[in-house]
Amino acid sequence: MIIEKINNKYKVILGSGSLRRKELLQKMLLKFDIKICNDREIFPHEINKNLIPEYLAKQKANQISLQLKNNFLLITADTIVLQNDYILHKPKNSFEAMMHLKKISNNTNHVITGVCIKSKEKEITFSCSTKVFFSQLEKDEIDTYVNNNNPYDKSGSYGIQDWIGHIGVKKIHGSYNNVVGLPTHLIYQKLKLFI
Amino acid sequence: MIIEKINNKYKVILGSGSLRRKELLQKMLLKFDIKICNDREIFPHEINKNLIPEYLAKQKANQISLQLKNNFLLITADTIVLQNDYILHKPKNSFEAMMHLKKISNNTNHVITGVCIKSKEKEITFSCSTKVFFSQLEKDEIDTYVNNNNPYDKSGSYGIQDWIGHIGVKKIHGSYNNVVGLPTHLIYQKLKLFI
Repeated sequence: MIIEKINNKYKVILGSGSLRRKELLQKMLLKFDIKICNDREIFPHEINKNLIPEYLAKQKANQISLQLKNNFLLITADTIVLQNDYILHKPKNSFEAMMHLKKISNNTNHVITGVCIKSKEKEITFSCSTKVFFSQLEKDEIDTYVNNNNPYDKSGSYGIQDWIGHIGVKKIHGSYNNVVGLPTHLIYQKLKLFI
Repeated sequence: MIIEKINNKYKVILGSGSLRRKELLQKMLLKFDIKICNDREIFPHEINKNLIPEYLAKQKANQISLQLKNNFLLITADTIVLQNDYILHKPKNSFEAMMHLKKISNNTNHVITGVCIKSKEKEITFSCSTKVFFSQLEKDEIDTYVNNNNPYDKSGSYGIQDWIGHIGVKKIHGSYNNVVGLPTHLIYQKLKLFI
C-alpha cells in the first residue's frame, strides 16, 4: 500500500496552516506533522496566472525544507481563484468579500491549486484546475454568508464546503477536493514517485 | 431568507436514515426531524432506469406522509449508481463490493439521486445526475477499502467522501453533494416553491 510505504519511509510534513488541507491529508490516511511558512507570498508580475499556485507552492517548500531533517517528505500548496484571468484574492474586509461573491454569482470561476512535494532527493510540482458553476446569489444570501461565516481566509471569498457552496454551487468540472484545498487524487499518484 | 421561512412555516421531516443526508440538510441550515420508511423498494421492471430514483423517492414520500400532521414538509430521496445502463446496487457482501469496485476502476459511472419534496398541498419530484471519473484502482486498494470501510450501505459500493474517493476519483461533472446523497443546490431552488 502506497500510503503505508510513505508513512514508513518518511517523516511527512504538511507545510500549510489550513485546517481543510490537514483534514484532506488525514482522510488519505497519511501521518504527518505541520510546519507553517510565514513568509510573504511574492511572485513575478509577468508570470502566467495559471502558474502562480505552483510557483508559490515551490517557494514555500524551499523555505520550510531548510529547517527539515534528512528523511522528510514535505507537501506545500497554494490556491487561487481565477475569473476571466482576474485573481479573486483572500478578501481584506466584508465589502471585498461581498464584491467577490457578486462577481461569482451566476457565473463560473476556476480554482487552481498548485502543489509541491519535496524530499531531500527530489522535488515535484504540479497543479490542478477545477471549474465551479455558481447559480444566482441574492443579496440576502451573500450578506448572510459573509456575516455568519469566515470568508477571510479563503481565496475567492467562498468555501465550497460552506453553506454558500451547498446552496449556490450548481456543478463542478474537475476535482472537488481541489476546490476545498488539495487535489488528493493527484497527490496520491505523485506519491508513487517517492517510494 | 428562504431557509428561515421554511423553518418557520413547516415542520420539516427528512424521510431517510442516511447519516450523510442528515449532515447535508444540516449544512443547509434546515431544522428537521427524521422518519424512516422501512418498506421494500419496488419499481416496475419496464421503467427507464434514470427515473427509478424519482419513482422510489415518491413512493417513500407517499408512505411516510400518511403518518404526518398538517404543516409537514417531507423530503425523501433515493440514489442509484449506473454504469452502462447497469445498476450497481448496494453490495450484499465483500465479494460483490469488490466486483463493483473492479467495474468502477478506470471507468466512469453516473450517480443519480431522485428527490421528492411533499407538503399537504403540493408534491415535487426531480432528480440530478453526476458523472464520476475513477482512476485505475489496484487490487490492494480495493481490498483495503472493502475491509476497512463500510461499502454495504452505499449504492455502487463506494462513498466519494471515503478514502477510496479521496485517492481514486479523478474528477466529476456535476454536483458533488448529489454523489454524497442529496443535490442540495436543487433542493434549495425547489424549496422556493413552498414559501
